[in-house]
Amino acid sequence: MLEAALRAADPRAAIHHHLHFEGDRLRVANRLYELSEVGQVHVVGAGKASGAMAQAIEEILDERIAAGWVNVRYGYSASTRRIAIREAGHPLPDQSGLEGTRRMLELVRRAGEGELVICLISGGGSALLELPQPGISLEDLQATTDALLRCGAPIQEINAVRKHLSQVKGGRLARLAHPAGVISLILSDVVGDPLDVIASGPTVPDPTTYADAWRVIEKYGLQIVLPGSILDHLGAGRGGSVEETPKPGDPIFERVHNVIVGNNRQAALGALEAAHQLGFNPLLLTTYLEGEAREAGRWVAGLAKALARDEGPIARPACLILGGETTVTLRGSGVGGRNQELALAAAIALEGYPDVLVVACSTDGTDGPTDAAGAMVDGETVARARQLGLDPEGYLANNDTYHFFKALDDLIVTGPTRTNVNDLVLILAT
Amino acid sequence: MLEAALRAADPRAAIHHHLHFEGDRLRVANRLYELSEVGQVHVVGAGKASGAMAQAIEEILDERIAAGWVNVRYGYSASTRRIAIREAGHPLPDQSGLEGTRRMLELVRRAGEGELVICLISGGGSALLELPQPGISLEDLQATTDALLRCGAPIQEINAVRKHLSQVKGGRLARLAHPAGVISLILSDVVGDPLDVIASGPTVPDPTTYADAWRVIEKYGLQIVLPGSILDHLGAGRGGSVEETPKPGDPIFERVHNVIVGNNRQAALGALEAAHQLGFNPLLLTTYLEGEAREAGRWVAGLAKALARDEGPIARPACLILGGETTVTLRGSGVGGRNQELALAAAIALEGYPDVLVVACSTDGTDGPTDAAGAMVDGETVARARQLGLDPEGYLANNDTYHFFKALDDLIVTGPTRTNVNDLVLILAT
Repeated sequence: MLEAALRAADPRAAIHHHLHFEGDRLRVANRLYELSEVGQVHVVGAGKASGAMAQAIEEILDERIAAGWVNVRYGYSASTRRIAIREAGHPLPDQSGLEGTRRMLELVRRAGEGELVICLISGGGSALLELPQPGISLEDLQATTDALLRCGAPIQEINAVRKHLSQVKGGRLARLAHPAGVISLILSDVVGDPLDVIASGPTVPDPTTYADAWRVIEKYGLQIVLPGSILDHLGAGRGGSVEETPKPGDPIFERVHNVIVGNNRQAALGALEAAHQLGFNPLLLTTYLEGEAREAGRWVAGLAKALARDEGPIARPACLILGGETTVTLRGSGVGGRNQELALAAAIALEGYPDVLVVACSTDGTDGPTDAAGAMVDGETVARARQLGLDPEGYLANNDTYHFFKALDDLIVTGPTRTNVNDLVLILAT
Repeated sequence: MLEAALRAADPRAAIHHHLHFEGDRLRVANRLYELSEVGQVHVVGAGKASGAMAQAIEEILDERIAAGWVNVRYGYSASTRRIAIREAGHPLPDQSGLEGTRRMLELVRRAGEGELVICLISGGGSALLELPQPGISLEDLQATTDALLRCGAPIQEINAVRKHLSQVKGGRLARLAHPAGVISLILSDVVGDPLDVIASGPTVPDPTTYADAWRVIEKYGLQIVLPGSILDHLGAGRGGSVEETPKPGDPIFERVHNVIVGNNRQAALGALEAAHQLGFNPLLLTTYLEGEAREAGRWVAGLAKALARDEGPIARPACLILGGETTVTLRGSGVGGRNQELALAAAIALEGYPDVLVVACSTDGTDGPTDAAGAMVDGETVARARQLGLDPEGYLANNDTYHFFKALDDLIVTGPTRTNVNDLVLILAT
């Protein structure tokens, strides 16, 4: 089922599905482009899956591509002929990422009326597609990114700040590309697919302002942590002496076409289809799973308990599917990830319940700072752990779920999957 | 739908459903008792719904009842002819409750071979059916109950201690009734209906020991808080100089018949049937909802979002039903309850989503220390609150959900319902 989910969210297949020739015209989702209109094609992009997306674009457009630059995470490169793939830092931007982004901006600025910029966006793009505003150094940007990621702010607030420190985010890439047309092909890694949040929306109108960014700084008390250059820039922006990000209604967006080519729901539907073929009664509950991972684990266990006692919404053999992305509030000093934490909390709640299995897995193959994608548990997981001398509650309290599941050999290890559409939880009852 | 849920879990109907005459025999769930076997019937019991249960038992057995004593919460009395109803303290036991329990024990001790004790158990029974072991005063028992309820221990651990301080809990009532037969009719207010936990299992084998009770004391650091009489008694029990509670396998339980007459699932199925009749596509997901209320609110919102975008498990008009009981970790100084807290967290997550309604409601009519049973929210709740100058996040952070919903007039107020089968959450999408 997990393999089917990953296939369904494969970025290469997703591009082919949404962009292909129909005779003399190029179909992009619900729009048709006359080839005479398309002219020179410039490709830019960034994200964990953007290497595979670049391969697909080359397969379709081939020699129509004048040039291309795409930034991917270290270890996520792909073999291409026309589009240069550059490896760069994530989750903190690094010099390589800035260099690649500078090349992209040169391409984009040169694109003229009647030409086309194709932008390949996937998860990780906020770090991998970045060039700070003049006067902000890489070090200051890194320190700011780090502080934002640690302060507990939701991604919407983090990105409100990042957009206003950047030459590309918050629709600024689209403004640089104007008057060329822009097609942005987006693999979503944010729950609910909000276009302005994914990769900080480089080709999307920005509803947030410098004033909003400043409110986030104040809300989390970051004035005392952030470098002076950052505070100076945001202050200048609030004062009106720096240009705002382009806003909803700006006419430049008339030439921009943003298309979600893949998301968590595609992966979940892939798992659903596989579950059906394997003889399970499948049900997709939601792809909007959010909140604290260990709490989500308890209610996932609550769904599993109902199935185990034949009180669930469907008859056994049953498979409930949920998608989304939880978060972990770190309290301990261990190693783990949100899926492993969800799984261990579910295991504790499910102790003794027979014939149910819970699988929690990241679709990008990386759950937290570990080499595992997730873990799987059942009603005997806790008893097996105790036999090995492991204390499940202790491992959970210490956020050390990786070592717990490693000892039990219940980790799910996929390696980098080259896609990135959040997480899946499968609840199986036989 | 809520009215239908309460009707389905009505304790009087539940008793009639599970206990009635079939010709010359008395059917109790799956067993038939010959009337010649039954002889004198003695009725005891305690809990919020036990007054209504006593009325039903009188309607069925009438003059076969030799005598009866039942403790209910203050304000929960009921009109009876043969069974004395006594109002008493909850959640802390009081002198009235102890007096009533003493009368019950006298009745039960007198019941002999060939006679029958009927025990009417409902939520609140742990406080309302209580007589401490010799040497433990009411004040010490109250202080201990209060410390246990505040220390954050789950109900299983709290009850492991309470059972070992009591003359009735943990199967001890059944031992006192021996050799009379015992029929325990139980309205469950604990998620999953664990017989040994509901009302601390007065007629159920106790799997916990004095050693377990002591471990709970140590785990929560209660040695320095609890009165000396409590520590002395538990110490004596660990040392073997006080008789243990009766354990699984004890032959006294061969004469005991424990029957769940009503639970959360019955209420949920009542709501399901009403939803169906009202034209909704209903789906009961689980009755095992547990965990932190505000986190449960987020994932309930996640289910609602999927319905709002036509990505849910069923087509609109849809009604998802969940049951269980969440908990609130108090951080602020406001007034509220677990259902109101769940509802406000859901409202914040659902801001702007159209055509969905979330209802969270206690079946006993009391949500936390408030006169409300719960609250209802939709995608406009947060905007309406802001127009009134209310800050939803602030009220949630201060656990002050009651005043938030009071100002919006979105509380659900039922008054005491005379039943008690946990909470229901309804998610409606039109």
